[in-house]
Amino acid sequence: MTSLIDKINAANEEAFSRLVSAKPVWVDVQPALSVLPGMTRHTVLHAGPPIAWQNMCGPQKMGVVQAVLHEGLAADEADAEAMILSGQVTVAPCHEYGAVGGMAGITSASSPMAVVYDSVHDRYGYSQLFQGPASGLQNRDDYNREARKRWTWLETVLGPVVGKAVRSTQGIPVKPMIARALEMGDECHNRNSGGSLVILNALILPLYETCTDPALLHEVLDYLKVNEQFSLCLSMAAGKAMADATKNIPYSTMVSAMCRNGVEFGIKVSGLGEQWFTAPASRIEGLFFSSEWSDADAVPDIGDSSIMETIGLGGHVQAAAPVLQQFVNGSFARATSVVESMQLITLGQVTEFKIPNMNFTGAPTGIDIRKVVQANLTPVIDTAIAHKKGGVIGAGQTRAPFDCFAHALRAFSARYMQQSQ
Amino acid sequence: MTSLIDKINAANEEAFSRLVSAKPVWVDVQPALSVLPGMTRHTVLHAGPPIAWQNMCGPQKMGVVQAVLHEGLAADEADAEAMILSGQVTVAPCHEYGAVGGMAGITSASSPMAVVYDSVHDRYGYSQLFQGPASGLQNRDDYNREARKRWTWLETVLGPVVGKAVRSTQGIPVKPMIARALEMGDECHNRNSGGSLVILNALILPLYETCTDPALLHEVLDYLKVNEQFSLCLSMAAGKAMADATKNIPYSTMVSAMCRNGVEFGIKVSGLGEQWFTAPASRIEGLFFSSEWSDADAVPDIGDSSIMETIGLGGHVQAAAPVLQQFVNGSFARATSVVESMQLITLGQVTEFKIPNMNFTGAPTGIDIRKVVQANLTPVIDTAIAHKKGGVIGAGQTRAPFDCFAHALRAFSARYMQQSQ
Repeated sequence: MTSLIDKINAANEEAFSRLVSAKPVWVDVQPALSVLPGMTRHTVLHAGPPIAWQNMCGPQKMGVVQAVLHEGLAADEADAEAMILSGQVTVAPCHEYGAVGGMAGITSASSPMAVVYDSVHDRYGYSQLFQGPASGLQNRDDYNREARKRWTWLETVLGPVVGKAVRSTQGIPVKPMIARALEMGDECHNRNSGGSLVILNALILPLYETCTDPALLHEVLDYLKVNEQFSLCLSMAAGKAMADATKNIPYSTMVSAMCRNGVEFGIKVSGLGEQWFTAPASRIEGLFFSSEWSDADAVPDIGDSSIMETIGLGGHVQAAAPVLQQFVNGSFARATSVVESMQLITLGQVTEFKIPNMNFTGAPTGIDIRKVVQANLTPVIDTAIAHKKGGVIGAGQTRAPFDCFAHALRAFSARYMQQSQ
Repeated sequence: MTSLIDKINAANEEAFSRLVSAKPVWVDVQPALSVLPGMTRHTVLHAGPPIAWQNMCGPQKMGVVQAVLHEGLAADEADAEAMILSGQVTVAPCHEYGAVGGMAGITSASSPMAVVYDSVHDRYGYSQLFQGPASGLQNRDDYNREARKRWTWLETVLGPVVGKAVRSTQGIPVKPMIARALEMGDECHNRNSGGSLVILNALILPLYETCTDPALLHEVLDYLKVNEQFSLCLSMAAGKAMADATKNIPYSTMVSAMCRNGVEFGIKVSGLGEQWFTAPASRIEGLFFSSEWSDADAVPDIGDSSIMETIGLGGHVQAAAPVLQQFVNGSFARATSVVESMQLITLGQVTEFKIPNMNFTGAPTGIDIRKVVQANLTPVIDTAIAHKKGGVIGAGQTRAPFDCFAHALRAFSARYMQQSQ
């Protein structure tokens, strides 16, 4: 009879191998309603594990209301709030709809989604195109007005124009872009300057060939020129497709999702299916982009972008992006020691994702809840900092809270120790 | 009375400060004839220190003849050779005409030159746009035919289209591009992938706005999309402008030029004016792009691209580009130790040019011939490898030969020790 440990090892090997064998390719941009399984006109998605609307942090709570207004479902904020509270509007995690959303992660029917497809595991992953940094933080009304103006532009210009260009290609493979970005000083979570230029390079000719309206093409090129985070939405969508392919492998102790809603940090574990294990979201250690802001303005850890650490990137490979050390008053040695510590809690190294300045060490990938608990060492997350009234106001690092992993390990023991007795 | 050592230190401080204060900006692309001081229709320039045509290595000798034919000065190769030997065609180093040329460096009247201007020192620097890798190495006639086809395209399409786009901007500052490239895994000599994407990003909108012929725009975008060395010609032209600004400072022991013609390596020293100090060019340690080639096919060290090491980049900052270690079977530790050794022979560190994965150490810049001779340690040059019949067939590293520096130091002593007695 196979021992429990052998079953776990075999299951984890299978889970890890799915991350390695995946070939996610960016194939399209489409409105959420037409691509997300289960999406409706009355659904608004958010980042992180499930949370009741009334318990959300400021920007997420506000974002859901704005999305209801933006989709034309309600006449005013009071009306929108009533619909949300009565359940006429479904509020649910992006993660439950095949998607991941950066920061607050607000995704509604019209949101243009990057569509990534992995033919090896026949899996899709989706993530909304970024609105870019929004100004007008002085009051929430200014912020919301600006954000909604950008949503409209993303839906009517960027999404359709870029989608048409991408469809005219054979698809743009995401893993080679990530591998190249790692050679260009990105860790593919907080820094995406290299990856975004690689994508820009891949898009120029298709854009030029498929966009017949010079004014629109100009607007799109303007946006791509300054948006140094553009490639993150593709990496995130690819990460979601990859991580979803590792789900539901009995006996696997590998983490298959990590996300935050600004209140709670949540994880899923392959062998434990769709159950969330949560703990309070952490404070972020970092720098604010302006001295007008401080910790008092910041929301705790928020966003689905920790899908990048789930597949071994971001904080796990931070030595690839030494410039980010400036956000944490760090050093190259600090960055390499973080990577080395992530090797202690992961199943293996993905050699496709190399860290050149660590002699091409592969990304430490496949977080094992047993190792996390044993080492009392949780994943390091590179992340942006959100303002309580909306908008990105800084960047830095944080750690996943220990209790998620401890809860999950207890649940794992309860399920599988019993079975094997 | 000021001591000799004080005079040298003051002169070197001045020389080094000129490298730091320079602000080279890419402002135009123009044919060599209309911008290079002293250029004529009957002049062909080459890389490296002066050399008689009959003593040149294969690709350079061949290139001069092809340039004479390309400019319509001769009817056939025999005719061209006769004109060269009789002096009807002037053959001279790029360096003596304000320019630098990659590899063989063949530059004739029609060659499209990147024009870089430093308003701080009122200095120009020029370098030809790259033809890109030429195939057809099976025999020299195929190679030459292909190369000349590309020259024509560079002159009639790339140069005019890109020149017009650049003129429509305020100019594109080269130092910030280099600084950014260093953050993106380039050392700005053998690797220019990051810098070329940064330039692509800066050029797209100007190209789109100024090029009215869609077919030509398409050709130019096609070229830029795949040319990962494009930014090198801008860095080289900027390097030439910067290094020229450090020339002719009495008492300075700083190197103001380093270049190779495939037979000899030559340097100039600021305090010694325009005199060349030469020694045989070195073999290159590296990898060939195909197993069909070996050392027997390779020309010794060739090209003016060592202007990059002259201003402290390339081999001097190779830890910024760990991927290049693959060419020399190296490691990240080897790369950092090379950088540290270059600190021993240079005057200071340019903090504008930071090496992120060495805790933002500045580039070791300003080669001091005294330090080179004292330490018996010569500059490390990252470089491509040329085939004897033309074309780039590999890449690697080499070292400047010691004797150039020893000759120069003897000349320096002869001039300045006498004066101070």
